[in-house]
Amino acid sequence: MRVFMFEKPLGMRDTLPDVYKTKRLLREAMMAEIETWGYSFIETPTLEYDETVGKASAILDQQLFKLLDREGHTLVLRPDMTAPIARLAASKLYEEGCPLRLAYAANVFRAQQREGGRPAEFEQVGVEYIGDGTMYADAEVISLMIFALKRAGLRDFTVTIGHIGYVDALFFDILRQEQRVETLRRFLYEKNYVGYREHVKSLPLSSIDRDRLLRLLTLRGGKEVVAEGKAYATTEAERRALDELEQLWTYVDQYGVTDMVKLDTSLVSHMSYYTGVLFEVYAKNVGFLLGNGGRYDELLAKFHRPSPATGFSVRLDRLMEAIGEQQRGEKTTCIIFSQERFTEAYAKAAEMRRKGENVVLQHIAGIQNMDQFTASFDDVVYVLGKRGKDEQ
Amino acid sequence: MRVFMFEKPLGMRDTLPDVYKTKRLLREAMMAEIETWGYSFIETPTLEYDETVGKASAILDQQLFKLLDREGHTLVLRPDMTAPIARLAASKLYEEGCPLRLAYAANVFRAQQREGGRPAEFEQVGVEYIGDGTMYADAEVISLMIFALKRAGLRDFTVTIGHIGYVDALFFDILRQEQRVETLRRFLYEKNYVGYREHVKSLPLSSIDRDRLLRLLTLRGGKEVVAEGKAYATTEAERRALDELEQLWTYVDQYGVTDMVKLDTSLVSHMSYYTGVLFEVYAKNVGFLLGNGGRYDELLAKFHRPSPATGFSVRLDRLMEAIGEQQRGEKTTCIIFSQERFTEAYAKAAEMRRKGENVVLQHIAGIQNMDQFTASFDDVVYVLGKRGKDEQ
Repeated sequence: MRVFMFEKPLGMRDTLPDVYKTKRLLREAMMAEIETWGYSFIETPTLEYDETVGKASAILDQQLFKLLDREGHTLVLRPDMTAPIARLAASKLYEEGCPLRLAYAANVFRAQQREGGRPAEFEQVGVEYIGDGTMYADAEVISLMIFALKRAGLRDFTVTIGHIGYVDALFFDILRQEQRVETLRRFLYEKNYVGYREHVKSLPLSSIDRDRLLRLLTLRGGKEVVAEGKAYATTEAERRALDELEQLWTYVDQYGVTDMVKLDTSLVSHMSYYTGVLFEVYAKNVGFLLGNGGRYDELLAKFHRPSPATGFSVRLDRLMEAIGEQQRGEKTTCIIFSQERFTEAYAKAAEMRRKGENVVLQHIAGIQNMDQFTASFDDVVYVLGKRGKDEQ
Repeated sequence: MRVFMFEKPLGMRDTLPDVYKTKRLLREAMMAEIETWGYSFIETPTLEYDETVGKASAILDQQLFKLLDREGHTLVLRPDMTAPIARLAASKLYEEGCPLRLAYAANVFRAQQREGGRPAEFEQVGVEYIGDGTMYADAEVISLMIFALKRAGLRDFTVTIGHIGYVDALFFDILRQEQRVETLRRFLYEKNYVGYREHVKSLPLSSIDRDRLLRLLTLRGGKEVVAEGKAYATTEAERRALDELEQLWTYVDQYGVTDMVKLDTSLVSHMSYYTGVLFEVYAKNVGFLLGNGGRYDELLAKFHRPSPATGFSVRLDRLMEAIGEQQRGEKTTCIIFSQERFTEAYAKAAEMRRKGENVVLQHIAGIQNMDQFTASFDDVVYVLGKRGKDEQ
């Protein structure tokens, strides 16, 4: 029993004061940018019905935290915010008139199989732009993500943009069967390009089709990728997707952020609900995904309100790791007093607090180890005893 | 299955944009005050082991949301923040030197039996002051709560202060048995004073003891309560508790907030871990408890670090109800554009956003119902078509 005394469940973490401050700064910077773009922040419950939000989410079932309520319904701790917001948009907010621009800063939950340092609870900041099927909506969401990351202080990062419609058009045209398409897609979302190549080479395909599948991996870069892709496109669906990427590029360019963007036709997300443009953001100095997003035009239909939609989410813990600790340079003063001089000590503290300074007011009898206690403050003032001057 | 489509689990709520803004304003006001008193904000996981935090919490077992992890351990959604912070203080933070001043703004979870409009998830803002057994610590926590509530904009409220040591001393002196004491205490924490009187009268007691128990209900008011109580105190423990209340009054008076405070010796909390001074705060215009707190000198020992401690927590949902909606007076402008004039529309939006204004930039093709959509903005600017002037 006692073994767990100081333990937390697998993947659960405490956030100590310095990290808390950094997280708050980054969250507030992103929120401030998102608000100036006219998005409204909302909150949804931590627990949702598995039958609705659990099933609609793109997170694997084994990653869901589940519990039973008193009536025997299965509840889940929300694994992302997209499905809960779709539920909310489809019900309460629908009367407000589309398009809806909603935003969130919220913890999400993903059960971990074993200790691997991966958090089972982490915060995402993101937006959902619902009811607008134009490429302007995709461009807005991508550009807003870039603006928000810059405002939080992130410098070197790249947003990779792909189109699931392009990948699917190509794969289905050649492979025909969902099962085979799924196998190839998995190599791509695992970014296992060696495996992809080997698998493609092992398939009984014409050399033309094999080349089409292998060329997918090479279509990476700026706007020129579109023209290159079009030169080889066989199906109408491939061309349509490339047209969308071209439009998107033009609009993102008008936002002035194409220097952070590259196109990559091999991009496939683990989020199964994406239907069109999709994207990922990586920081240069860290190897992991900071955030992602894309168009999900079929999710709202699961809540009986068919509607186009797009959005992004950024992981705050990873953004923090990419940026490093941000200190506000705020100092805390400790005023240590003895009984007789409480009034004087408090007057001093109150005056400093009015100016916005952080002041701990500490009775000397409450301190167990003076050296250890005072070590944590930037400044210590002693207001002790009945006579003499105070040493500072 | 489809019945639950738009449903949320029992007691779970969505927070829509206007309420979200108000909540954020109130949270930030309280946090700003708490920070100037030198408290450090921290975050703990939503899920904890039942064996440690679940058992240490003062919330009834049937109110805990429980689930099993993959190893078969029972997890709980944290029902309060005091027990998780005790765990944290006892482990990681202990080396930092006591006293510790920690603070939080966090959601907690309490399962509801049936639909009664009570939320199963709500946010608390509070502090824990660990390692200081002096009455200065109690006075600081109570005064800080008052300052923070005032800063959030709350005007008419009362903090009622009692002492569980006083109640227990009196009850045990007369009734001797925990079982009987518990019965009487329950009347008090349910604030069922009629039931209390009837129960006392039904007990086989001397008229002196009966009067002592009934007098408990009348000791309410300002500092004079202490003298009155002392005139009748029989045991050393009663006198010690009254001395503490007297000291507390003196210190709270030096903080200049006794006009918000009254003493009430009959105050008993539903939180079973309180060991000394305890308090509740009510707003004048609403009937419910806004927040509460008190001294809990035995909780840290459950985590093998015996240490005195005190703290408060305020429910943000109830504070919001007491204060009413706070609007920041921020307006949102919508710029509606057509394709040809995107550059111009974006330049206008970017300029306004740089000034901190909230601007939605909307392509006209993304709007389904123009009247409904534009109704939600304070201002709408049309940048449409190739020629002519824009009507605003």
